[in-house]
Amino acid sequence: MLRQITASMTFETRGRGLLEVTGRVADWVAESGLSSGLLSLFVRHTSASLLIQENADPDVRGDLERSFARLVPDGDPLFRHRDEGADDMPAHVRAALTAAQLSIPLTAGRLALGTWQGIYLWEHRMAASARGHSSSGGGVRR
Amino acid sequence: MLRQITASMTFETRGRGLLEVTGRVADWVAESGLSSGLLSLFVRHTSASLLIQENADPDVRGDLERSFARLVPDGDPLFRHRDEGADDMPAHVRAALTAAQLSIPLTAGRLALGTWQGIYLWEHRMAASARGHSSSGGGVRR
Amino acid sequence: MLRQITASMTFETRGRGLLEVTGRVADWVAESGLSSGLLSLFVRHTSASLLIQENADPDVRGDLERSFARLVPDGDPLFRHRDEGADDMPAHVRAALTAAQLSIPLTAGRLALGTWQGIYLWEHRMAASARGHSSSGGGVRR
Repeated sequence: MLRQITASMTFETRGRGLLEVTGRVADWVAESGLSSGLLSLFVRHTSASLLIQENADPDVRGDLERSFARLVPDGDPLFRHRDEGADDMPAHVRAALTAAQLSIPLTAGRLALGTWQGIYLWEHRMAASARGHSSSGGGVRR
Repeated sequence: MLRQITASMTFETRGRGLLEVTGRVADWVAESGLSSGLLSLFVRHTSASLLIQENADPDVRGDLERSFARLVPDGDPLFRHRDEGADDMPAHVRAALTAAQLSIPLTAGRLALGTWQGIYLWEHRMAASARGHSSSGGGVRR
Repeated sequence: MLRQITASMTFETRGRGLLEVTGRVADWVAESGLSSGLLSLFVRHTSASLLIQENADPDVRGDLERSFARLVPDGDPLFRHRDEGADDMPAHVRAALTAAQLSIPLTAGRLALGTWQGIYLWEHRMAASARGHSSSGGGVRR
């Protein structure tokens, strides 16, 4: 029989950068008892993103940061919205260029991720923060 | 008991820019009677996007426009597809850089948006247009 | 009655570029018997994306390639992660700028795509590859 389960999680970021959340999300899926279905993650902020990326080489994360820092430079004189500093508006543009939401199929009670895929919460602000997201799982329960 | 409801909406854009649609989407959720579940929005165009962004300071919207206009310049000689003008191909690239689809959890009969989040339809063409999207909600009905 | 169905598909890419997969996905929807609901596609790789784009003019696909090649240049000295060549890290950045996942409403047994929309698997590596994705459909069965 189909079920629908929703929960909130909070993650402590350490400032700008990619925080892997695969483990905690996988734990939630295991506890939910869902065996086949769809998990949707939604970040409740406009200066952080959800990202699927390679979880093997840490250089990938550094390169992603450097690449986005060049595409959307901090302190760019183009920006008028600067209330919270030089990284404020760039964080919103980075959020627009990435995703606030991810839906991942569940099969046999597990996230159907590829071998090299991890789930990341991408903090775009320089300061550490507590970031909430909602997890919504729908599917067939064991 | 789980239900699945699908509907179409049309929005009149006023040319390039972010049109907030949070209110109409929230109204649809309220009318649907869904209390817990997942709402998926899908824009049926290739030159408009769906975006979660800050809904407080209007400067954010202007800065997003200026930032994307520099990343993907109108009239760029790089582009061969120019049938409909200088903003035609840039609109497709902007659509690729953003999202055609958004899924947002529903809790207690409401969109589980963060405090500062609004839902926007981003028109990438210069001309005003009627833009359709589909809303698909699945979940538990009150 | 609501159902949930999950499947895997593999596509052979011919190296970097957009491969249209609309037909095979539509066939899967028809075989699933789902009449109303939501289809979620998820690519199980970190150097390929899923994209909704114009399926009429092939120049659009070439222009998308040229635009992304300029935004994220191959062989950029910025990148440290180069184990698999000059297109390795740019493929990850392109994946971050686009989407690993797409959810498309189903109405009357068909994908609710707009007139000009096609579903594409975007291969970001230069070499041809076999790329898997998962399809997860939930909804009302005929």
